[in-house]
Amino acid sequence: MKIYDYQGFPNPARVRIALAEKGLTNKVQFITIDVPNGEHRTPAFLEKNPSGAVPVLELDDGTTISECTAITEYIDHAVGEPTLTGRSAKERAVIHMMQRRAEAGLLDAVGSYFHHATPGLGPKIETYQCAEWGDHQKKRAIAGMKYLDGVLAKQPYLAGENFSMADITAFAGLAFADFAKVDIPADFKHLKAWRARVAERPSVKG
Amino acid sequence: MKIYDYQGFPNPARVRIALAEKGLTNKVQFITIDVPNGEHRTPAFLEKNPSGAVPVLELDDGTTISECTAITEYIDHAVGEPTLTGRSAKERAVIHMMQRRAEAGLLDAVGSYFHHATPGLGPKIETYQCAEWGDHQKKRAIAGMKYLDGVLAKQPYLAGENFSMADITAFAGLAFADFAKVDIPADFKHLKAWRARVAERPSVKG
Repeated sequence: MKIYDYQGFPNPARVRIALAEKGLTNKVQFITIDVPNGEHRTPAFLEKNPSGAVPVLELDDGTTISECTAITEYIDHAVGEPTLTGRSAKERAVIHMMQRRAEAGLLDAVGSYFHHATPGLGPKIETYQCAEWGDHQKKRAIAGMKYLDGVLAKQPYLAGENFSMADITAFAGLAFADFAKVDIPADFKHLKAWRARVAERPSVKG
Repeated sequence: MKIYDYQGFPNPARVRIALAEKGLTNKVQFITIDVPNGEHRTPAFLEKNPSGAVPVLELDDGTTISECTAITEYIDHAVGEPTLTGRSAKERAVIHMMQRRAEAGLLDAVGSYFHHATPGLGPKIETYQCAEWGDHQKKRAIAGMKYLDGVLAKQPYLAGENFSMADITAFAGLAFADFAKVDIPADFKHLKAWRARVAERPSVKG
């Protein structure tokens, strides 16, 4: 397996945590795509992912998989029992629901703020910006944090008793929020406590 | 099982097709949420789905599941072998990837155009609009159609040889495009032929 990514970016972090949770990190060859200099927009990379985003998983048969949820599905079903995406129908449903809420309401909202309402990755990369939309998405990100804080007031992880793909997405979302200077409001103490706990996992700590 | 939805809307259609594909339609009680009159914004409904969107699946134990991919995961794993979300790690990955591409690049793009750059569901429902963003998303929807047309030039369904959740998402996206008056360009013949074929499935034809 190969992973094309850019270390330290939020979506690459999601897949790297998933790989570490499954003990697969050493089975993967990582290839850097120089996103800050636009390598993700070259024809060679767009061949692997027409949407031009990292990370991309390339299987040994040449199949390329993009979208973090899809890559995580692969990783989680490739070895052992699925632990990040759920086993039963109900577990799968709750994890996918919470993953999508963390993605749309936090990670993607922060991303829209960063890429539209700040200089983002600079004028060569940010070829279309809509500042009004970006500013609105910052408010959405704070609302997303508030929602997640409420969930974590009642249970240890976003999908219930166990760490899952939903936690990985939200953790990457908060890292992106730090980078984009979207502060977690001080009174979101459940979210902060959860974040501190997740940061201690070997898959995250490295 | 109960489904809270509004018949004829794009996301409710996704779940209704999935239920029909699995032969579960008659096992579900459908409860109408009057979205055009704002019932999805009432405290009672927000209790079921804090994001205020339909459809919502309510299990017999009271668990509520929102987000179409999550509901489809439940439906697909509730009876028989999974047929809409894939069996092997690779099948699951390809289907989730193509589903997300159809969702972000077509269905959600059309939705953003409709809710932001047209009167949408009217001033009582569309309480925040960003017309510039909406217009940009219309272009994204056409680009999404072009991408899907290219995929369907090479294979019968979006994830390969078999009908899947990805096809359901794209089919609902095209229905929404019709409603929002985003025309499929005449030369996207593979997309049009695929659409005609999917429209003939018993789960869609009803």
